[in-house]
Amino acid sequence: MLDYKLLQACAEVIRHASFEKAARELGLTQSAISQRVKLLEDRLGQPLIIRAKPIVATASGKRLLQHYQSVRLLEHDLQDDLPDIPSDGGFGQVALAVNADSFATWFVNVPKCLFDEFGLLVHLSVDDESLNHEALLDGRVLGAISLRPTPMQGCRARPLGKMRYVMVVSPEFQKRYFSAGVTADALRSCPAVNFSHHDELQNQYLKTHFGLNPGDFPAHTVPSSQGFVTVAEQGIAYAVVEIHQANDALRTGRLVQPCDHVIERPLYWHHRTMKSKLLDRVNETILSEARRFLPAIDR
Amino acid sequence: MLDYKLLQACAEVIRHASFEKAARELGLTQSAISQRVKLLEDRLGQPLIIRAKPIVATASGKRLLQHYQSVRLLEHDLQDDLPDIPSDGGFGQVALAVNADSFATWFVNVPKCLFDEFGLLVHLSVDDESLNHEALLDGRVLGAISLRPTPMQGCRARPLGKMRYVMVVSPEFQKRYFSAGVTADALRSCPAVNFSHHDELQNQYLKTHFGLNPGDFPAHTVPSSQGFVTVAEQGIAYAVVEIHQANDALRTGRLVQPCDHVIERPLYWHHRTMKSKLLDRVNETILSEARRFLPAIDR
Repeated sequence: MLDYKLLQACAEVIRHASFEKAARELGLTQSAISQRVKLLEDRLGQPLIIRAKPIVATASGKRLLQHYQSVRLLEHDLQDDLPDIPSDGGFGQVALAVNADSFATWFVNVPKCLFDEFGLLVHLSVDDESLNHEALLDGRVLGAISLRPTPMQGCRARPLGKMRYVMVVSPEFQKRYFSAGVTADALRSCPAVNFSHHDELQNQYLKTHFGLNPGDFPAHTVPSSQGFVTVAEQGIAYAVVEIHQANDALRTGRLVQPCDHVIERPLYWHHRTMKSKLLDRVNETILSEARRFLPAIDR
Repeated sequence: MLDYKLLQACAEVIRHASFEKAARELGLTQSAISQRVKLLEDRLGQPLIIRAKPIVATASGKRLLQHYQSVRLLEHDLQDDLPDIPSDGGFGQVALAVNADSFATWFVNVPKCLFDEFGLLVHLSVDDESLNHEALLDGRVLGAISLRPTPMQGCRARPLGKMRYVMVVSPEFQKRYFSAGVTADALRSCPAVNFSHHDELQNQYLKTHFGLNPGDFPAHTVPSSQGFVTVAEQGIAYAVVEIHQANDALRTGRLVQPCDHVIERPLYWHHRTMKSKLLDRVNETILSEARRFLPAIDR
């Protein structure tokens, strides 16, 4: 059988991409961690970690990390049935990859549900699509939110619902720039707000509805979903945001919708196909939270 | 004299690390952009861009980008004096690097001031310290917020003030976990919340005041300043946050401070030393906003 002490050391180095952080996490010295990884590599007869900056896992290293995460899941189920087995500080752990707009809207109560109901510590990473899929494939996360409808190998993709994006502005901004309505000409001379992962979305919005190409309109850059709403409320840009982010401000009149165009984005929950009570619970929590907020995807 | 059409193409490729985005930004085809970069490289007799994924600038490429940004600054000053020269969509542009906690607190009004007073489109990048310094050195940003007191070559570092970090929890969390006060034992058995760039700060907080090492205490991971306050309000973690982030919630009683310990972090504004009216205005705006919110750094 594998030596799980060694495997744990190796998995934590890969997860943190750092010997130092893995050492801290496990309460060991860096040299102890390093020895364990070396020993495991010797026993398996192949390198598991490429010692570059940043540290990268080899294909074998990634595969081992996956295996390690699966074993942890099974252990968690076991603790459920045999509650006397001690777990880390009394809590289980689950790592999830989320897109920024979900994190800023319907996803907000998921960590609370997982902690309150199942005693889980939640480790979120908020990255772009392709990095989220990579994290799922590598076994660094148990599940990932994504716009892709098709599952990857060994995974399942389940519909979460549609995010709906609308244009919002402050009443003053509307008066100043959109007094004759939202037209291509008006959009050429007032600032939008870009967010790297929003660009594609906003570009499609302005192209589809107004025939504008990127470069045709001026824009600020603010890499934060929350920041988007803030600059719109401050009246220095129009913003294309997920409707839930603007609900409060629309209700109180701090923001208005200067036009009725909507862009929809279907969202999917990707997770490994494996038997685990913990995974089932996480899946149920996320699917039910999504359905509370998001309209269903059209068939 | 340099051909600035070529230089602009090259600078945008470096700034966006993408031929495709540079093409969109300038309203050109990718092949036109690629030809311009190639032509400039031929004329200067050296490579400016390493065509890898992601695209990287060579040392010469970086130096040229710096020069390009300086010329853009000087142009902006010129437009000020000769208002008939057309600029991009009627707006100037300024790129700034910010740390996440500043962005979530005292910095929030800076883009509005720069847009309202000087008609500037503001491009923010929110990254960690070392990446912010790199962006300043490379000329991708005009200035950067940082904890480092010492200026880099060709730059100036000016004190902004102290950020002050305190521990906050929901009243229910306090009752449940800290009924006998905040002690090392209590902290061993209730969740903190980590944010990669916060780790060092929270670790110091828990080490200095409670003798705890990382790994001694359970923690969620939430990579968002806003998310820190949210999970604390939801009562699933205690959080060590910049005091301004929690002010509203402390006032209304959604959060309380379970102990009086404070950690302070002096902040500095780093910018190039060059003569430019635009830069002077940006500096003044940022320094005066910081001083409105942050107490002065002790001498």
